[in-house]
Amino acid sequence: MTQHPQVVIVGAGFGGLRAARALKRGDVRITVIDRRNYHLFQPLLYQVATAGLSPNDIAYPIRAALRRQKNTRVFLAEVVAIDTKRRKVILQDGEVGYDYLILATGAGHSYFGHPQWEAYAPGLKNIEDALEIRRRILLAFEMAERETDEERRRALLTFVVIGGGPTGVELAGAIAEIAYTVMVQDFRSIRPQDACIILVEAGTRILPFMPESLSLKAEAALKRLGVEIVTNSPVTAVHQGMVMAGTQTIRAGTVLWAAGVEPSPLARSLCVPLDDVGRVLVNPDLSIPGHPEVFVVGDLAAFVDKTGKLLPGLAAVAVQEGRHVARNILRMCNGLPSEPFHYVDLGTMATIGRAAAVVNFNWVMLSGFVAWIIWIFVHILLLIGFRNRFVVLFDWAWSYVSFQRSARLITGGWEK
Amino acid sequence: MTQHPQVVIVGAGFGGLRAARALKRGDVRITVIDRRNYHLFQPLLYQVATAGLSPNDIAYPIRAALRRQKNTRVFLAEVVAIDTKRRKVILQDGEVGYDYLILATGAGHSYFGHPQWEAYAPGLKNIEDALEIRRRILLAFEMAERETDEERRRALLTFVVIGGGPTGVELAGAIAEIAYTVMVQDFRSIRPQDACIILVEAGTRILPFMPESLSLKAEAALKRLGVEIVTNSPVTAVHQGMVMAGTQTIRAGTVLWAAGVEPSPLARSLCVPLDDVGRVLVNPDLSIPGHPEVFVVGDLAAFVDKTGKLLPGLAAVAVQEGRHVARNILRMCNGLPSEPFHYVDLGTMATIGRAAAVVNFNWVMLSGFVAWIIWIFVHILLLIGFRNRFVVLFDWAWSYVSFQRSARLITGGWEK
Repeated sequence: MTQHPQVVIVGAGFGGLRAARALKRGDVRITVIDRRNYHLFQPLLYQVATAGLSPNDIAYPIRAALRRQKNTRVFLAEVVAIDTKRRKVILQDGEVGYDYLILATGAGHSYFGHPQWEAYAPGLKNIEDALEIRRRILLAFEMAERETDEERRRALLTFVVIGGGPTGVELAGAIAEIAYTVMVQDFRSIRPQDACIILVEAGTRILPFMPESLSLKAEAALKRLGVEIVTNSPVTAVHQGMVMAGTQTIRAGTVLWAAGVEPSPLARSLCVPLDDVGRVLVNPDLSIPGHPEVFVVGDLAAFVDKTGKLLPGLAAVAVQEGRHVARNILRMCNGLPSEPFHYVDLGTMATIGRAAAVVNFNWVMLSGFVAWIIWIFVHILLLIGFRNRFVVLFDWAWSYVSFQRSARLITGGWEK
Repeated sequence: MTQHPQVVIVGAGFGGLRAARALKRGDVRITVIDRRNYHLFQPLLYQVATAGLSPNDIAYPIRAALRRQKNTRVFLAEVVAIDTKRRKVILQDGEVGYDYLILATGAGHSYFGHPQWEAYAPGLKNIEDALEIRRRILLAFEMAERETDEERRRALLTFVVIGGGPTGVELAGAIAEIAYTVMVQDFRSIRPQDACIILVEAGTRILPFMPESLSLKAEAALKRLGVEIVTNSPVTAVHQGMVMAGTQTIRAGTVLWAAGVEPSPLARSLCVPLDDVGRVLVNPDLSIPGHPEVFVVGDLAAFVDKTGKLLPGLAAVAVQEGRHVARNILRMCNGLPSEPFHYVDLGTMATIGRAAAVVNFNWVMLSGFVAWIIWIFVHILLLIGFRNRFVVLFDWAWSYVSFQRSARLITGGWEK
């Protein structure tokens, strides 16, 4: 009796989880390793950071997602390195051998060589980050309510979001909504309407990956919400309560980072060429040079498509890559050659706030209410589990009619 | 023009929040001070600890709850002492004067003089506690899945709950449900059904405040769920992974504390007589000796009713006390004498798990499914806010039909 080949998947984000599911009926044994016990729906993480949703609305236990897949086991473990020579995944407390490996560990924040900025400008990659950002935003209003010095109060009510990509746009829009609609009646000494929300972008326009007309529409929608947009202003320094962007110095009680990503450091242990930010330069079939049995998918992979463009770090890319790699592994198990990957670009979207979004389907561009409804339904469908879909949809409907946010909790202490 | 009298309420739990609301139409200025920005529905906190609900389902922003009450302001601040001579509430960063004071700061855990036990046996009083307990319970199963030593694995799958009051009973029942129904298909190396859940009680029976027949029914329901009950066993020592209770030594990976409460230390700064555990011995109108303008309500007050019995630390008691004190303050503002408090005992209840509860209405006792339905509706009605009521009811219905739990997240690191 020959044993089925062992497939190890490191990381249960969009790429890893889809790969595991696509291998469900394969004659393989699968081990999914993640340092979290849940799959996180990152595109909605900014709503946790802005008190709109709870963490568990956008998270789903990996074990529960793979419960019925009897060829799969799940390990909660921290992977410290990959030994491609011995075909072992090295854990903090052990190792797991593989015949095929799918590395899908994604990316964290990059402060472009200034790691000391992180303390003053937290980024948004996981649930702990989101709760910390929520804590800082809500606490700023609470402290302003009790502040008697006018200048300090103004600084407390100034929020700077660095980075004009989708996360930065969505964060800035959501903070503006909290200040200008949710909280207007809640304070006695301050007027939350006086809050100042500034979105800082180094390049010439926000949402640079979108067509220029949609960037302009998003900019107009943000300005209607009350967000100030500062473009052409690379950040040169971040200190406690202060940001230097372009030629401006902004005093701000809350600074959030949505600018750069840094691929998982596991890439280095593969001992293959990386691109300039640290992504793995993968082969056309997403395997790595010299190791046809090792695949990299999602934000960790630098995949150049046939037009010579690097695929962006989107959930849709990771999902398609994960599925493709699973199919390739099944082909290889049957003695067939692996096939190159082709990305099918179904479009990109970003939401700006209440009833406003931009959607680029490539064949048609939409903005405003219709785009917002499309954004909502695409995101609801991509969530895992009926319960989460239902509760998120209910919470959105409730926020829309009540102008409230359901998760306005300051947890984890209130010292600034 | 005379200024309206200043009423300061410290603590926005059941007693404090009800008092604030009852003063809504009074000619008074109200300041509510709490070190949290939310009111917490503590009776359901055990469901957050056992992955059934999210923190924000049972929490509501104090500001939002009092938004429309224009005579009320809310301070997020830590109160360090009360100066009854100068009529000042002393904050960590300032002070607030009062004409009337309502002290409603409740109670924390008591380890009966063994504070070192807390690290090994966390208690359940706030959201951070609940998330820590949830983390420990879920992590124990994850670690057992990867443990190869049989004895260590058995210890990891042993859960001890100390204290047979409502919190202990509800925690033990909920852990049994997770192990024996929710997780049965999720693991490959362990059988969650092999988990051992032990409820330890120092006295002769669980739920000692209930009639004996209901205690026995609760005991039978817990045993049906698979919980082992150890009575007459005061805990004499708690170490890492080990509990000594009565004559037994139990090796357990997870130990939870639901045994004792310790009133808020603010009581001491009042300089009035306290009872043996530290509660304030209040006058019949809930004021303190020598200071008719200072009232204590809720878990912090030791109120002896006309039958000579001390009122228990229940939400219902705090709510009635809060409302009564508010009425007394309005009487005093109009030059009328304050009136003594009388508790109307509407009954007590506890839930044991899926479709099982005990309810004592004094005139009738119920158990089983009917009691469970009553328990559900009473708790839904007591929650604040339509959104929380709806989502909690939905989550309960969903858990009932799907045998799942919606909040199975390990957050805040996974080092044991």
